[in-house]
Amino acid sequence: MPRVSLLPILLFYLIYTTGEVVSDHRKIRIDDDVYCESWRFSVETNDAGYWSTIPARCVQFVQDYMTGDQYRYDSEVVAENSVRFAKTVEISDSGSDGWVFDIDETLLSNLPYYQFHGFGSETFDEESFDSWVDLAEAPALPASLSLYKELKQLGFKIFLLTGRSEYQRNVTEKNLLYAGFTDWERLILRGPSDQGKTAIIYKSEKRSDLQHEGYRIHGSSGDQWSDLLGFAVARRSFKLPNPMYYIS
Amino acid sequence: MPRVSLLPILLFYLIYTTGEVVSDHRKIRIDDDVYCESWRFSVETNDAGYWSTIPARCVQFVQDYMTGDQYRYDSEVVAENSVRFAKTVEISDSGSDGWVFDIDETLLSNLPYYQFHGFGSETFDEESFDSWVDLAEAPALPASLSLYKELKQLGFKIFLLTGRSEYQRNVTEKNLLYAGFTDWERLILRGPSDQGKTAIIYKSEKRSDLQHEGYRIHGSSGDQWSDLLGFAVARRSFKLPNPMYYIS
Repeated sequence: MPRVSLLPILLFYLIYTTGEVVSDHRKIRIDDDVYCESWRFSVETNDAGYWSTIPARCVQFVQDYMTGDQYRYDSEVVAENSVRFAKTVEISDSGSDGWVFDIDETLLSNLPYYQFHGFGSETFDEESFDSWVDLAEAPALPASLSLYKELKQLGFKIFLLTGRSEYQRNVTEKNLLYAGFTDWERLILRGPSDQGKTAIIYKSEKRSDLQHEGYRIHGSSGDQWSDLLGFAVARRSFKLPNPMYYIS
Repeated sequence: MPRVSLLPILLFYLIYTTGEVVSDHRKIRIDDDVYCESWRFSVETNDAGYWSTIPARCVQFVQDYMTGDQYRYDSEVVAENSVRFAKTVEISDSGSDGWVFDIDETLLSNLPYYQFHGFGSETFDEESFDSWVDLAEAPALPASLSLYKELKQLGFKIFLLTGRSEYQRNVTEKNLLYAGFTDWERLILRGPSDQGKTAIIYKSEKRSDLQHEGYRIHGSSGDQWSDLLGFAVARRSFKLPNPMYYIS
């Protein structure tokens, strides 16, 4: 009996008659997607709590999300929700109606940086990120820029509350102006006494200070739950998408 | 010159050479999916605020989500996150370590009801929903049942805090037992003095009462943000998915 390899015949049989190989491959892809979708759900709802880097099997998923239509459109829907609420606020003549914005991944997009750093799959490197910040070239998140302008027109005082430090004030202002943001009421950065605090405490304290000054914080926009929760929270909080990193 | 319809030739050309018809169709589908994904993001993050029924164009999307792998797996990941946190809690001998569960769409699934009521696209009908509740046949959400058992084994006291009313106590207990839940510490339903309150106030007050009794509420699980936010919040909150309805 001659030795005949059955493999090509078997493969042909599988592919031609049942499509099993194709659908097996598809099954693996779907499983990855289901896994990464669930991971993203747990991250965006804050269920996951602390995490350092994105799961290795979700790098492509996060890349596709961040560079595709979905991220842009998610941000637009957040802005729409924000405007809809903002229009229900009765703005007083006292100039005390405030809205708080985070900066990174809220007003400005660091996607040009993260595209070269694995979309959150690499351990955060402060040195290289600060070099990127120093360039002052982060583009605006388009939906947030429209929201920002609309809120100003409605009469809100805009407070920018960022985890960046005082030594980055100049480049931050430069970048904001470059990206099209103007006429904010105040830019709040971490001063010497804020160093070492978690973002959620630091930002709550600053919002509390604003309230003690007499401002009513109607809305707050941020890509991290630590921008939004804690104490002295805004009347309504708006969580922007960010599956690339977590700040506690 | 003979009259010749160019349509079949044109169609053949489009399909055969460029796949335009196919990808046009795909484009339309993708746009709907992108819209509904963004809508789901805004709902699950609480950005949307109050809403009454799901968008008409997302009925199929919500049906596919709720009856497919993703909903099940999302719930499993929430349970995994919950267990991971629960295992970090040092349980004291005093029996004062508590965990709060919502019931509907958290421990019990009303999917068999919503499957016949448009997956949240129909206006909520209290009468027909109460008839369904009276059957006491809602199945357990599998991931939550496993979590429930694991938390009990770890030594947590389980508090069930539901928007259902006292007159539904018997059927609720019956349904919980039928679905496999046993040995809860307390089942808290809306009494006469709780009627008319929003869920977020009612549930915050009840958690506050538990804290005044001396319980530490380490974790809280619910499909609505009104289960989790407000005051007297748990140390960690776990948001389960629910794109079918909103309770303020």
